Amino acid sequence: MRNFRNIFFALITFSLMACNTEEQPVQQHTEKPDYALVIHGGAGYIVQGRYDDKQEKEYIDKLSQALSLGDSLLKIGVKAVDVVEQVVMLMENSPLFNAGKGAVFTAAGENEMDASIMDGSKLNAGAVAGVKTIKNPIHAARMVMDSSKHVLLSGEGAQQFASAKGMEIVDPDYFYSENAWESLQNALESEKKKEKMGTVGAVALDQYGNLAAATSTGGMTNKMKGRIGDSPIIGAGTYADNESCAVSGTGHGEYFIVNAVAFHISALMKYKGMSLQEAADHVVNGILKEQDAGGGVIAVDYNGHIAMPFNTPGMFRGYIKAGDEMVVKLYGEDSD
Amino acid sequence: MRNFRNIFFALITFSLMACNTEEQPVQQHTEKPDYALVIHGGAGYIVQGRYDDKQEKEYIDKLSQALSLGDSLLKIGVKAVDVVEQVVMLMENSPLFNAGKGAVFTAAGENEMDASIMDGSKLNAGAVAGVKTIKNPIHAARMVMDSSKHVLLSGEGAQQFASAKGMEIVDPDYFYSENAWESLQNALESEKKKEKMGTVGAVALDQYGNLAAATSTGGMTNKMKGRIGDSPIIGAGTYADNESCAVSGTGHGEYFIVNAVAFHISALMKYKGMSLQEAADHVVNGILKEQDAGGGVIAVDYNGHIAMPFNTPGMFRGYIKAGDEMVVKLYGEDSD
Repeated sequence: MRNFRNIFFALITFSLMACNTEEQPVQQHTEKPDYALVIHGGAGYIVQGRYDDKQEKEYIDKLSQALSLGDSLLKIGVKAVDVVEQVVMLMENSPLFNAGKGAVFTAAGENEMDASIMDGSKLNAGAVAGVKTIKNPIHAARMVMDSSKHVLLSGEGAQQFASAKGMEIVDPDYFYSENAWESLQNALESEKKKEKMGTVGAVALDQYGNLAAATSTGGMTNKMKGRIGDSPIIGAGTYADNESCAVSGTGHGEYFIVNAVAFHISALMKYKGMSLQEAADHVVNGILKEQDAGGGVIAVDYNGHIAMPFNTPGMFRGYIKAGDEMVVKLYGEDSD
Repeated sequence: MRNFRNIFFALITFSLMACNTEEQPVQQHTEKPDYALVIHGGAGYIVQGRYDDKQEKEYIDKLSQALSLGDSLLKIGVKAVDVVEQVVMLMENSPLFNAGKGAVFTAAGENEMDASIMDGSKLNAGAVAGVKTIKNPIHAARMVMDSSKHVLLSGEGAQQFASAKGMEIVDPDYFYSENAWESLQNALESEKKKEKMGTVGAVALDQYGNLAAATSTGGMTNKMKGRIGDSPIIGAGTYADNESCAVSGTGHGEYFIVNAVAFHISALMKYKGMSLQEAADHVVNGILKEQDAGGGVIAVDYNGHIAMPFNTPGMFRGYIKAGDEMVVKLYGEDSD
């Protein structure tokens, strides 16, 4: 069953054409769109001049490709939870981001990846932490959600589970990428500004009013062995609730955990009556900024409003709403 | 420095006398007490007749001893975060509960323990997950908070960290307890009612207005290898914020994660204007109960109000406020 579905998704992915990458100001339409999708590829020291034209184009193309995939799926009625999984898998398979293929290295020179997914229609969730050999951690998170009685599996136990479920297991060498290795060397030399960015995430509202969120990461360059950040923590890096919003975060994970960032935004909407934009801004540019905690979030609410605030110089990001042109941005020049 | 402190705490522990275990109705004084402490030793199928008189006395005595220790410490001005750590360590060292010494077994017949601690005065937190050889997981969580740049460390990485910090490492055999082993056998035979209860937790308000929370567990009997529940998840099983409350949970961890239970109670106070009792009840007897998710929480707010709601037949629990008699309860006959 799942194999057929994956082949179907793969066919759609391969058939995608190059897509519009024009930057446009964020617009909040008053009418609810049929569907909406927001993605991120990490927040941090992303400034004009850091990447050359070729690299810049690579990021824009990959983000556009991810949005196009999601748009195609949402348009034909695929559910939000399936869409965010597929979109994140596409980004995991790229070496550009710090997730899956491009995961950064721990202090011990290994790749330990985390991912989580949440279906806001059922408050159902799955996550994996500290996995080293699963090609697509977000797919493993999905399997934990669908096919185990647990929400979060870690380390060897998670890998045994993934293997037993027939997921693609790869040699740890698969996750070697030159920019991630250089990032570790830079971190060891305390060159924080050269650190590789790139936790990835996607949030979606589908045609049926369902919200879902997914996040995947290699964690922090030079992190301690066994460190778990916010990305696999439901409530911190990922949250989705059809009654409020879907959120995926990227940034200094420890602060995202103690501030329960993703759930926090949902709670401000539900209990304080804030709009999505107000709630996301309050957490990212209020609470986190006051704690000197760098990062950003992407979010979509049940009305298809979106928010993409970040308090870092830039964030790889983009969105698309039914019938509209897609928007992709890297830098902070246009405040969202 | 820490060693001296631990010897000091140990001396106080050993000097404690047997204490008052009279059950009394919960009273909420209008004036703020100088300090307050609430503890739990797990929620579940805890009913009259399950334990014989001797066992019942053992639970009451151990809970009373934990409350007396905390009372002694809070009285002389020890801070909330130190108190909850010491109180939870005392319970971890008892085979009665499902934490530390008495931890239950995974499906693979191992003990994998989780613990977390949070200091509400700084929103600072530490946690460990899936540790197998650290005698006192809550102490390791405290060390992650104090002496690492991370919040959550898991598995082997957490153990290497603890070992490097000089924490007591024990042979996995240390964690064998007959009742935990029997619980696994019962679980394998689907005798859910005989499952061992006993995640432990403590929340405290100290003389300086600081709130803190700590939780420690062996997890779910018969859980999958690598499963992480709510106990090491800041926001799910544990939360503390001086501006609202401190919460420690016990129950079906997967539901505590997706509902961000501990942070949820804090958010309902801060953003919805609920009292502590209303917020805790809403989450435990409203949200969790509707999802058929068994469990309970203990909580204390910045005014020293306490709440101990649970939706299971019973919960090992107790509290003490400055100058008052302690209260210890096991069963559900008296609604809290």
